[in-house]
Amino acid sequence: MKKFSIFSLSFFLLMCSFYVNAQSEHPKLILTKEVVTEITKNLGKIPLFDKTYESVRSGVDEVLNNDIDVPVPADPGGGYTHERHKQNYDLMYKAGILYSVTNDVKYAKFIKSILDKYAELYPTIGLHPQAKDQTPGRLFWQSLNETVWLLHTIQAYDCIYDWLSKDDRNKYEKNIFLPMTKFFSEDSEHEFNLIHNHGTWMVAAVGMTGFVLDNEELIQKSLYGSKKDSEGGFIAQLNLLFSPDGYYTEGGYYVRYALWPFFIFAESIQNNMPDLKIYEVRNQILKKAFYSAMQMTYTNGEFIPINDALKEKTYLSSEIVYALNFVYDRYGEDKTLLSIAQKQDRVSFSKGGIKVAEAIGELKTIPEFKWESVNYLDGPRGDEGGVSILRWGPNSDMECLLFKYSAHGLSHGHYDKLSMLFYDQGREVIQDYGAARFLNVEQKSGGRYLLENKTYALQTIAHNTLIVDETTNFNGIQSESEKYHPDLYYSNLTNPDMLVTSAKDVHAYDGVKMHRTLLMVNDPGLLRPVVIDVFRIESEKQHQYDLPFYYMGHFISTTYDYNPNTTLRKPLGVKNGYQHLWLTAEGKSDNTSSFTWLNGERYYSITSNTDKNTQILFTEVGANDPNFNLRNDPGIMFRVKDDNHTFVNIIEPHGDFNPTLEYSFNSYPAFEEINVVQSNEKYTILSIQGKNKLSWKVLICNDNADEKANHIIKLDNGTELSWVGPIAIQK
Amino acid sequence: MKKFSIFSLSFFLLMCSFYVNAQSEHPKLILTKEVVTEITKNLGKIPLFDKTYESVRSGVDEVLNNDIDVPVPADPGGGYTHERHKQNYDLMYKAGILYSVTNDVKYAKFIKSILDKYAELYPTIGLHPQAKDQTPGRLFWQSLNETVWLLHTIQAYDCIYDWLSKDDRNKYEKNIFLPMTKFFSEDSEHEFNLIHNHGTWMVAAVGMTGFVLDNEELIQKSLYGSKKDSEGGFIAQLNLLFSPDGYYTEGGYYVRYALWPFFIFAESIQNNMPDLKIYEVRNQILKKAFYSAMQMTYTNGEFIPINDALKEKTYLSSEIVYALNFVYDRYGEDKTLLSIAQKQDRVSFSKGGIKVAEAIGELKTIPEFKWESVNYLDGPRGDEGGVSILRWGPNSDMECLLFKYSAHGLSHGHYDKLSMLFYDQGREVIQDYGAARFLNVEQKSGGRYLLENKTYALQTIAHNTLIVDETTNFNGIQSESEKYHPDLYYSNLTNPDMLVTSAKDVHAYDGVKMHRTLLMVNDPGLLRPVVIDVFRIESEKQHQYDLPFYYMGHFISTTYDYNPNTTLRKPLGVKNGYQHLWLTAEGKSDNTSSFTWLNGERYYSITSNTDKNTQILFTEVGANDPNFNLRNDPGIMFRVKDDNHTFVNIIEPHGDFNPTLEYSFNSYPAFEEINVVQSNEKYTILSIQGKNKLSWKVLICNDNADEKANHIIKLDNGTELSWVGPIAIQK
Repeated sequence: MKKFSIFSLSFFLLMCSFYVNAQSEHPKLILTKEVVTEITKNLGKIPLFDKTYESVRSGVDEVLNNDIDVPVPADPGGGYTHERHKQNYDLMYKAGILYSVTNDVKYAKFIKSILDKYAELYPTIGLHPQAKDQTPGRLFWQSLNETVWLLHTIQAYDCIYDWLSKDDRNKYEKNIFLPMTKFFSEDSEHEFNLIHNHGTWMVAAVGMTGFVLDNEELIQKSLYGSKKDSEGGFIAQLNLLFSPDGYYTEGGYYVRYALWPFFIFAESIQNNMPDLKIYEVRNQILKKAFYSAMQMTYTNGEFIPINDALKEKTYLSSEIVYALNFVYDRYGEDKTLLSIAQKQDRVSFSKGGIKVAEAIGELKTIPEFKWESVNYLDGPRGDEGGVSILRWGPNSDMECLLFKYSAHGLSHGHYDKLSMLFYDQGREVIQDYGAARFLNVEQKSGGRYLLENKTYALQTIAHNTLIVDETTNFNGIQSESEKYHPDLYYSNLTNPDMLVTSAKDVHAYDGVKMHRTLLMVNDPGLLRPVVIDVFRIESEKQHQYDLPFYYMGHFISTTYDYNPNTTLRKPLGVKNGYQHLWLTAEGKSDNTSSFTWLNGERYYSITSNTDKNTQILFTEVGANDPNFNLRNDPGIMFRVKDDNHTFVNIIEPHGDFNPTLEYSFNSYPAFEEINVVQSNEKYTILSIQGKNKLSWKVLICNDNADEKANHIIKLDNGTELSWVGPIAIQK
Repeated sequence: MKKFSIFSLSFFLLMCSFYVNAQSEHPKLILTKEVVTEITKNLGKIPLFDKTYESVRSGVDEVLNNDIDVPVPADPGGGYTHERHKQNYDLMYKAGILYSVTNDVKYAKFIKSILDKYAELYPTIGLHPQAKDQTPGRLFWQSLNETVWLLHTIQAYDCIYDWLSKDDRNKYEKNIFLPMTKFFSEDSEHEFNLIHNHGTWMVAAVGMTGFVLDNEELIQKSLYGSKKDSEGGFIAQLNLLFSPDGYYTEGGYYVRYALWPFFIFAESIQNNMPDLKIYEVRNQILKKAFYSAMQMTYTNGEFIPINDALKEKTYLSSEIVYALNFVYDRYGEDKTLLSIAQKQDRVSFSKGGIKVAEAIGELKTIPEFKWESVNYLDGPRGDEGGVSILRWGPNSDMECLLFKYSAHGLSHGHYDKLSMLFYDQGREVIQDYGAARFLNVEQKSGGRYLLENKTYALQTIAHNTLIVDETTNFNGIQSESEKYHPDLYYSNLTNPDMLVTSAKDVHAYDGVKMHRTLLMVNDPGLLRPVVIDVFRIESEKQHQYDLPFYYMGHFISTTYDYNPNTTLRKPLGVKNGYQHLWLTAEGKSDNTSSFTWLNGERYYSITSNTDKNTQILFTEVGANDPNFNLRNDPGIMFRVKDDNHTFVNIIEPHGDFNPTLEYSFNSYPAFEEINVVQSNEKYTILSIQGKNKLSWKVLICNDNADEKANHIIKLDNGTELSWVGPIAIQK
């Protein structure tokens, strides 16, 4: 936290003088009097808004006469009481909206009937019986779910605040809201002050309760931490959880989840403390956070699954609906966001929600959202590595490569320094496993992260990067990993036909220097860009170097012989994740080799600078997995025993497999020969040959990222090569 | 062939008197003068037609100035010369359309430039060097591809017929068309007369050439076989390849392919021999064939993959575009077809094509295509078993079960008597492997059927049906399998809340009688219908009975313990397909057991009447597969050693897994206990219990399918049960 104090002091001084100065009326959070008027005025006129409203109304009306159960907490995630309490806050939240819009007391009564039960239950329960987490809840097995409950319920309460009798209000505040906010901000003080998305949920729930209860203490704590010293709280989170680019240190999957409390609370603050100008804080960090989150998705909507991430999560999630609506409203009505909102097919009950729905109804053509090639720096100061995302082609069929050289990423970080992922055709082509977890599925460890998340998914071997001596980066010790980060060596994303990113790491393995350079290169002789992956390793000692690629699709062919394990399968190793890989085949190629697979309607090949010292291993995930928790995904791995070594792999999308029109073209790769002419601390020189007289030289200067530097080197055969800048291709 | 002679004689006598009596002008096949006029008149006015036209135009214009290669045949499927000759006929065909519509001679010249090369090449080549098939081609490795070439090229030739000089016409006819039709109808006489889709392609190509060349001999041979004795030819194919319902004996995948020549040739006949009334033949068998093909698809567009079938084939295929357009035009403009045409997003250059495109442009709302619960009888007389398709729910989320009790289905038939497949949510839930083949992929045996198609995919073990003593139905001998078929015992598809189908087989295994009854039962207490699967086996001797289910999705849980093979995997068996299954775990349950998996956003369970004699085996496809030709799909298998035995399995879709809204409900099945109270030749009585006081009796009379028969039986405990008809459920 030290880092923060240095540059947040000015914020702190500046902000302590802001107090609540707006919205004396209820509701006052997201749904304000003004928004309610706007909704009432427009109901029946804006198709997308009406559709959203109708779905909320019918969902609530369906159960309005039911006796809603408020059970004594018993089950973990996915179990009955867990899911029931989740449904309850959702129903109250929606009924609150309906009451505000219709003034029909049946909705207020419905909320009251549920709140009455919580007011009875809550004072009688201690910590949740299933709580195994460091941060247990009372209604739920983890406090995180409880903050989400409060964040929704307080909005429902806000909506019927004026309708309730003073006695009822006293009862709910005394029995539910004050004990719960105390439970968060005092009994769970460590979590409350955490610079982590769990902390954000907590301060948001407490702060919003503060607004509704007109409780200045809760508001100040939520903004500046339980001690009001800016070491915790919302402002500190805004300063520390995002890099100056808006990149969120946990990665795309968790930023999605974090954006929810960030935006809900920000909007509540804006409506109640407009002078704080929360949307302007840190050069509009919330806007940057939103756009960087969107850039962390692929065109199919999925968040690129670095670190702990479930692949089924997309920009259709509720949190992105909210965030998008607010960003549209507060940051200049970017029309390209409407194409995303259209796919979400619903809006939020907010000013932004109405505006978005209105604009979609009015615009004749909606411009596409622009996914771009970008570099994001990690760390609050932007000096802790980062990620590069290289993109080529239209949204309908885009190549996308993510290169990860970021910091560890808190407790959900994976040990995958210099890893990469590759997409094409709207599909994963070279995948990251993501997390081993079945969210909310009771049978699968109550929906928690599974054991295999630790034993496989977060280990280095589960990623498309180098593993030294079958060990994991930093020996899998989080506290060590958090001390260091790789560094971007060079990147240039200005030329769409040659996108370049290159980073180095010297900490993940003792005595091993890693330098990976990835180029996305387009050429008129190719179907579409190829990825040239140059992974250079330096060490004084000999090690075993493994470089796996977890390809998606069906094995088609290799240019070499291999021994398949057709009648007996054994795991590849015994620890650090290797125990989870079945060894399915072993091959060898004395010279450049290619492996081809089919994914969707396109072929993909990896052409590699293999030699007689390279082992080629084929694997399938799923060994030592007694509960069948893992997906059975295939992989190919290149293994050498060496000190200094350079792996070169060209990933090439090629051909066309069209089952509808029944044809197939170019099922063989274009690349045929890769020679590492030279590779050392100063230079890596590759000579690449392929079909149709393809002949490229890839020239990388490894120790000078100056774009203007001239390089001249003389090869052993007398050829002189000269170029400008750290990386060049000569064709 | 004997069967045919009996009832085709009248056809034969009737038809020999028809001669070509229309269309003296060119073009005269699908694209007639009349159609051309219609197209010219409408161009620019019908969006879908214009889009189709534009895509054809741009595709041809792009290569119009290229020197098109007509290589000496060398490669098998997927290889260069193979794909080049395919492209060539496609280009000529399209250029023919463009010439007819635009009268621009550049298109005619383009076709001529290619035909000139073929006129040089064709006389110089013998059989294709890669021909390994019984029916080799000359331009292609199998004659099938060559018939497709001719069927397209003759249409191109027809379009420029009037533009060509007489000398050129003579050259092409002498060097290409006459030798090729001779090659088909004389040198390949066996294939030409075959009652098989390859035969249909051949007669269509030869017959259409006959029309264009005004060659009565070719026309008569194509209609009535090479000997003009009605033992072969198009009319015999119409009579023998379809059942009276229009069901095609090879199944849905191949009927799709067969419909192409059937409809192209029928439309050509209609345009040239209207008096033959080809569309009326055999009570409009072509209409029935088309609709039964459509009913053999699932709502996701895929042909339900019984027998040799590639799952990537859908109703978007060109052949279905043609057939649909002709059916729309010739059989009363069924508007529900337009919803399919809309998804196809293109039309054919025919009267039907214009009409379909026009109707789509004009209609405000397009009615949905209706997938229905149907029984199709197999065999030309409808007395060789068949298939039942049970369906429930809207197109957007439909349960669909196919039960197969059909005849063998020619050379592409699988050994899977009484097999079933189950779909839900637009997805496969219990799958059939389909065929082991990568169509046109050169590296995968030149795109042919792979070795594993024979060693695994067509074996009984690859299907969701009974395997006795680890052997395949009829010991895998096609000629034996073709002698017999199961018989429908009873089916009733009138009550959508209880769909019933039941069939028996006594031939597939010596001394083993099999009787499978499948019910799709809806109940207000359940999310949606469950499938009750009752598989009763009678034998005088003890056997090993295996009943596998190849579930799609991720393993979630079992109600029993099992031993997973976590560090060593071996194949389950050594032959008949068992050698391709890895044994992944073995379990046992002394009483009713459930296995649950997750697929998409829904849970599925199989609840089974297991007992202490049942072994439960979990498998994964892929052992003994050195070239990685097979998909690594999971399965669960129930194994008992018994003489008489009844397997009862309830397949239940349940719950809701929603990753977007982050909740999960009802991840456990509702069914808890299955008791087989009695099961013998006369009756099978099941008692089924479950959550929420679910208590069902399933009552099956096994030897009397009379719907009006009264049944009364007294159980050992004194209870008397009475019901009417062969199958009843009492709740």
